[in-house]
Amino acid sequence: MYGLIGKIKTHPGQRQTLIAILLEGTGGMPGCLSYVIAEDASDPEAIWITEVWESQASHQASLGLPAVQEAIGRGRPLMAGFGERFETRPVGGQGLLASE
Amino acid sequence: MYGLIGKIKTHPGQRQTLIAILLEGTGGMPGCLSYVIAEDASDPEAIWITEVWESQASHQASLGLPAVQEAIGRGRPLMAGFGERFETRPVGGQGLLASE
Repeated sequence: MYGLIGKIKTHPGQRQTLIAILLEGTGGMPGCLSYVIAEDASDPEAIWITEVWESQASHQASLGLPAVQEAIGRGRPLMAGFGERFETRPVGGQGLLASE
Repeated sequence: MYGLIGKIKTHPGQRQTLIAILLEGTGGMPGCLSYVIAEDASDPEAIWITEVWESQASHQASLGLPAVQEAIGRGRPLMAGFGERFETRPVGGQGLLASE
């Protein structure tokens, strides 16, 4: 498995809009075993995305999906930048979707 | 929802043992919607745990579960310390278990 933990900073007041775009554009991605969108509890302009993929290749392929492309296009102007980013190798746990 | 993203550092060579203990001790926790254990891709002694709970109270309550207590007891001597820790408010996504 391949995992990503990453923080996105939005322009002031844009967090809810970006979250809505991300929720809409990231369903049903092949090879995606978990994709959780969260607000940072202490920074009102920050979003965390934690992802688990079958492989790095399935993550890479997701970036070309039409719905993801559309979300990136609509979301990018709302982003002020990126914060921390960690690559992981998930090994198990609870709440991982079955591979397709 | 209540979320945690946290890094644990293990003593040299103890990562796999700690992961096995965590996998064993963290199943079926009430109010746990996601609990993913991952190796850090670049640090051979680091583990990431990403958690989603129904509420902060359900996370707090989990720390008193016998299986979790046992895992903490067995795991603690293998830990060298903690790294980054972020509190979040998850809003949705893929792979969240249904609330019980």
